[in-house]
Amino acid sequence: MGLTVKKSEDLSGWYQQVVLKSELADYSPVAGCMVFRPWSYSIWENLREAFDSKIKDLGHANAYFPLLIPESLLKREGEHFEGFIPEVAWVTKGGDTELDEKLAIRPTSETIMYYMYSKWIKSYRDLPLLINQWNNVVRWDTSSTRLFLRTREFLWQEGHTAHATEGECDVEVRTILDVYAWVARELLALPVIKGKKSEGEKFPGAVYTATIEAMMPDGKAVQAGTSHNLGQNFSKVFDISFLDKDQTKKYAWQTSWGISTRLIGALVMIHGDDRGLIIPPRVAPVQVVIVPIYYKESDRAAVTAEADRVSAEMKKTGLRVKLDDRDDRTPGWKFNEWELKGVPLRVELGPRDLARKQAVLVRRDTGEKLPTPIIGLAQSAESLLEAIHGNLLARAENTLRGLTTEVASYDEFKSVLDSKGGFVVSNWCTHLECERSVKQETGATVRVIPFDSRAEDGSRCFKCGAKATVKAYFARSY
Amino acid sequence: MGLTVKKSEDLSGWYQQVVLKSELADYSPVAGCMVFRPWSYSIWENLREAFDSKIKDLGHANAYFPLLIPESLLKREGEHFEGFIPEVAWVTKGGDTELDEKLAIRPTSETIMYYMYSKWIKSYRDLPLLINQWNNVVRWDTSSTRLFLRTREFLWQEGHTAHATEGECDVEVRTILDVYAWVARELLALPVIKGKKSEGEKFPGAVYTATIEAMMPDGKAVQAGTSHNLGQNFSKVFDISFLDKDQTKKYAWQTSWGISTRLIGALVMIHGDDRGLIIPPRVAPVQVVIVPIYYKESDRAAVTAEADRVSAEMKKTGLRVKLDDRDDRTPGWKFNEWELKGVPLRVELGPRDLARKQAVLVRRDTGEKLPTPIIGLAQSAESLLEAIHGNLLARAENTLRGLTTEVASYDEFKSVLDSKGGFVVSNWCTHLECERSVKQETGATVRVIPFDSRAEDGSRCFKCGAKATVKAYFARSY
Repeated sequence: MGLTVKKSEDLSGWYQQVVLKSELADYSPVAGCMVFRPWSYSIWENLREAFDSKIKDLGHANAYFPLLIPESLLKREGEHFEGFIPEVAWVTKGGDTELDEKLAIRPTSETIMYYMYSKWIKSYRDLPLLINQWNNVVRWDTSSTRLFLRTREFLWQEGHTAHATEGECDVEVRTILDVYAWVARELLALPVIKGKKSEGEKFPGAVYTATIEAMMPDGKAVQAGTSHNLGQNFSKVFDISFLDKDQTKKYAWQTSWGISTRLIGALVMIHGDDRGLIIPPRVAPVQVVIVPIYYKESDRAAVTAEADRVSAEMKKTGLRVKLDDRDDRTPGWKFNEWELKGVPLRVELGPRDLARKQAVLVRRDTGEKLPTPIIGLAQSAESLLEAIHGNLLARAENTLRGLTTEVASYDEFKSVLDSKGGFVVSNWCTHLECERSVKQETGATVRVIPFDSRAEDGSRCFKCGAKATVKAYFARSY
Repeated sequence: MGLTVKKSEDLSGWYQQVVLKSELADYSPVAGCMVFRPWSYSIWENLREAFDSKIKDLGHANAYFPLLIPESLLKREGEHFEGFIPEVAWVTKGGDTELDEKLAIRPTSETIMYYMYSKWIKSYRDLPLLINQWNNVVRWDTSSTRLFLRTREFLWQEGHTAHATEGECDVEVRTILDVYAWVARELLALPVIKGKKSEGEKFPGAVYTATIEAMMPDGKAVQAGTSHNLGQNFSKVFDISFLDKDQTKKYAWQTSWGISTRLIGALVMIHGDDRGLIIPPRVAPVQVVIVPIYYKESDRAAVTAEADRVSAEMKKTGLRVKLDDRDDRTPGWKFNEWELKGVPLRVELGPRDLARKQAVLVRRDTGEKLPTPIIGLAQSAESLLEAIHGNLLARAENTLRGLTTEVASYDEFKSVLDSKGGFVVSNWCTHLECERSVKQETGATVRVIPFDSRAEDGSRCFKCGAKATVKAYFARSY
């Protein structure tokens, strides 16, 4: 059952083993498509619930738009279409009948949603329109599958808003990016760099793309969420216009934004260890597992009764608790299994603990064993879970810091990229040709240009020598 | 904005108007596929949350399986494949490349899920496996679209369980059917008849199908949820087998069950009136709308302050409240809009009400205006919402009773069917050929055979004259 690969020796092999053996997910008989087993789906549900409540408080509502998009509709915004066309899965038959027009399985829903928005938005009274949907999308990627991080079908949310003014639109892009950073940091214990994408990396059809980027232990970046300012690019093509208070017709200003199940992949990679997953407490399907311990039948009744009581008490305080009272597994076997599955806190309860009016709490992140009074155990568990979140975040921040290197020259840039990888930070000119040649020569892309980033006075681009205007974070990525 | 069709005169025209004008839903540019606007999606969210929590309490967990199913996999269970093949939407291209094997967009997920179950289930320890998923499915139906009730894509949940014994499997089928009846009755105020489907109407691949059936005001039935006992039909084909405690290999016993967004269509049809929707309080997106009323600017501050206070107080008690403080609409305009949208309870609050320390509560179901003390208003609203639920249910039960007719002969059967429709109840033989000829001659199908239904002693089938064994409910249906 345990892992046979060390994380530090082979991250990729370790990742695959831990995802499969912890029963987070599985491969399916359709190449490139995965199964989200209950253990990962529950993480997604916890994340979804928290995010959903945040955006509803901000006035957004959920809706659902069709899975299938006619080719002619997908084509309307040219840049957008060019960006997605190579990856579209096409429906060409219904039953035995060839369709007149082929239908794309949505790779993203701008076109189908904005077609509807143009019907619904007529007056300033209809704005802002703040809609989100939780759905599946398909991108027929031909590169090799990596569970959660690169699959042809994935789950996500996509928010699509329309506003009366450019200013509101800018605020929305940043507000959502802040919520994304909150999700990453406060739920997943995943520190991220916030900023903008370069011209070469922005969303097809956007004016600009804001992003949060995370760093994995092997020095490759993960794009963890993006929020796009679409300006009036789509509203002009789809005629999303409204009669404003001043009685003139105007085009709406739009945003779109998404986070996906790839966040689960990032969570696994950043926090896990050689014993398996470590799931951050705030999204863990089970936060506390209770393992009753007895070797003599005479101890059984007292121990299980106390375990039941502790479990009920913890549930009452709102903790997600599992009492593992299986008879056909030893305590040691259970410890291993729940460590593999990444439950952040274990409660061991045996006859000796009962006698001492204590239980032993065991932290998944550090392995520490903490004898703790039975009285107030639920509160102690809650505090420990908070401490575990804090520790996981601090560790991940440490990794991020260690994998961020500022360089002054292109030689240094290439050397850092090849030796340790990570974010390589440099004064940069922001020119599209320049980023293209860096990408071609090194495989590294501009991951993020932090907000308010400025190059040092008078500095030159590390690559092309033109005037530098920003400090950009380059990296190879998943 | 209001409806131009009367429900009693043209149910179908009324239905379409009310769905579009209340902004529940819209047609999309893909024939047969609809858009769930926030107003209907929120009803779905409320239903989902309540159902999800019930089945999780019963030990089920959510997961997510791929959208696309290879043709060869869909074909494995012959009867199942025959049942769905005419309605499958096929993906044949990924990007520019023709696929080697075409992929079905799931019409339902038995085959893809059971392929995985066979990998996961090895021992009695792996049972029962209780998995549910919330997802979209596509059935390329060629009959005409009716929003919610008949669309090519719809949203649903599909539960799929595997058990060690036939007995457990039977219990599961009935347990879930009871939860479905609870959803219909207690959330949607929709009375249903519980029972089994006939041989001709059961799910393709099932041993038997249990169902809940509802009756619409025009005398046509709606299948509101089904729970299938699959026996070992799929487990033998997909080799879902396990080593039992007695060390012998056995095949698992399976169930599958689903309810879908068509329930929203039933809710609209059964409860609405000539002014618009009436949404049952327990699933209403907004349960209470507060409309402040002032005609003089001098009243404004006091009225809006009190409206704010009432709104906050109601939210605190857990009610879903909307304060409609728009300045550019008159109170009368707002009353009409929220009546069209079916909010069950309205609070009117004007200067005179303030002076009398009261508000006027207005029931959507009866139109009654109830002056009510401001003190304890949230509790009064809660009680009224319960009363509204009870009244909607009682009305629907009345409709169901009025549209249920017991007949003794085939002539009488046809005459009732053509005059008033509804459930036509009769002693019946249960033979497949018999139900087929009834269907062919009248368009009516066996909707449900109530559990424990028995024909009268010595009675004969109303159609073919063979020995009758049950009383069956026939009807035309949506």
